Amino acid sequence: MFPKQVSIFEVGARDGLQNEKSVSTQDKIILIEDLASAGIKRIEAASFVSPKWVPQMADSGEVLKNINRSSAVTYSALTPNLKGLELALDAGADEVAIFGAASQSFSKRNINCSIEESIERFIPVIEQAQAANVPVRGYVSCVLGCPYEGDIASSEVARVSEILYKMGCYEISLGDTIGVGTPHNARKMVEEVSRKVPVDKLALHFHDTYGQALANILACLETGVSVIDSSVAGLGGCPYAKGASGNLATEDLVYMLRGLGIDTGIDLNSLVNAGNRISQVLGKTTGSKVARAMGK
Amino acid sequence: MFPKQVSIFEVGARDGLQNEKSVSTQDKIILIEDLASAGIKRIEAASFVSPKWVPQMADSGEVLKNINRSSAVTYSALTPNLKGLELALDAGADEVAIFGAASQSFSKRNINCSIEESIERFIPVIEQAQAANVPVRGYVSCVLGCPYEGDIASSEVARVSEILYKMGCYEISLGDTIGVGTPHNARKMVEEVSRKVPVDKLALHFHDTYGQALANILACLETGVSVIDSSVAGLGGCPYAKGASGNLATEDLVYMLRGLGIDTGIDLNSLVNAGNRISQVLGKTTGSKVARAMGK
Repeated sequence: MFPKQVSIFEVGARDGLQNEKSVSTQDKIILIEDLASAGIKRIEAASFVSPKWVPQMADSGEVLKNINRSSAVTYSALTPNLKGLELALDAGADEVAIFGAASQSFSKRNINCSIEESIERFIPVIEQAQAANVPVRGYVSCVLGCPYEGDIASSEVARVSEILYKMGCYEISLGDTIGVGTPHNARKMVEEVSRKVPVDKLALHFHDTYGQALANILACLETGVSVIDSSVAGLGGCPYAKGASGNLATEDLVYMLRGLGIDTGIDLNSLVNAGNRISQVLGKTTGSKVARAMGK
Repeated sequence: MFPKQVSIFEVGARDGLQNEKSVSTQDKIILIEDLASAGIKRIEAASFVSPKWVPQMADSGEVLKNINRSSAVTYSALTPNLKGLELALDAGADEVAIFGAASQSFSKRNINCSIEESIERFIPVIEQAQAANVPVRGYVSCVLGCPYEGDIASSEVARVSEILYKMGCYEISLGDTIGVGTPHNARKMVEEVSRKVPVDKLALHFHDTYGQALANILACLETGVSVIDSSVAGLGGCPYAKGASGNLATEDLVYMLRGLGIDTGIDLNSLVNAGNRISQVLGKTTGSKVARAMGK
């Protein structure tokens, strides 16, 4: 039984733009405001990772402070550590997110520590966020495969997800970081995780690197999961670069959900316009097939 | 319950290349031979539509006569009329195909006659093909929507499919010509058609114009349908042209089916190599996400 409603968690302004060439603070603000106008209620707007590592996000504080806020929207920020959390709180993030992995090798290469060490680091971040009444979202990457280890056991995804959930993350976003999953193994993974974390606390963050994201989401919707991460215009997923992150375009997801009779509260035309505007800023063709087909 | 095996009907060398810039006869032959080497058993290799209308296919006779044939492969040709059929039989086509529509407006604009008139025209083609012991495949276009009429009733798709089947077509390929379908309406359409034509006589020909093809196929596999049309490298689906046909890349389909444990008999690496070779000839990036991700 499919959910009647799906909540889209829009990651284009962060996960997307951090994998594109730099755009101005003003263009980021316009994008975020466009997304809110299109009816998106949850927007990842900033990252307080060290600008040494992610220079594209160095102006995250300025972005968060200067958007014309909608009270209906939650503006989220990625906060890998206490310093990041302080900056995010100072800039007025409504919620924050931490980033873990289901693969030891990926954890070591991506955030430079083991899974266990990363969890230790998250403890004070979660405590201080909770003290400030700011919800914390947890990402788990490599849930369907790892570029270094290959297959990842769903039991390991479930174990890490449960730890983050019990530590206080209000929602766990399951990331198929390299997009290698296919429908049945994706659904099985979600089913296994949902035995440790309530399914209404799970989100899907599936990349489209192998073109499988929508089919995988379709299969997983049957588990009852009803939060999906995606990126307007497929931002961050340069279709021609090897190893591109391959974000799923929000437009294509909303099109499918609309066809399935699942409400998202998003106006597809406005969303397409938002995606086309930022694509134009980047000087690239939109990564959304729906946007290309609509030909605006 | 999903089928254990799926038969891929590869349309890249015809439906694909007729929507690309012209390539040499030799390059077409190489493509067809590459596809056979990769394990594809059904290849649409030629079209005997008037070269006035489709100049890219003017050398179809030469192609069919000069491929190094595999006895395991069926080489098919599109034959809109008796003249086309004669040319196809002369060139040694193993099977032929006729092209109908579930939309009156599309039929009139695409083949210049009503649905009923087109069916009248098919009668002698089918009769002569059968007299030569050559099976006839029937395409029905616009099964999930029409660029001129919008929604198309599944009952009309079922009606036209049944007529073609009863006239002698051994298989009916259901074409979402403009790629507008979504999973539930795609499955409902197949279910409705399968009440008039046995499901093992149906094929899916879904375009990826809106990025929905794989999700739609996933949903339809539950009906028992087990023949799917697709186009290596997504040939014919220029991703940047408005109104592009948007063929689904065979590589992406085979990747999904493999993940579902469904056998196709196709070697994915060889298939990717075949698609990359013709893409290089065309001077364009492959339309297959799997091929891009595999980065060969």
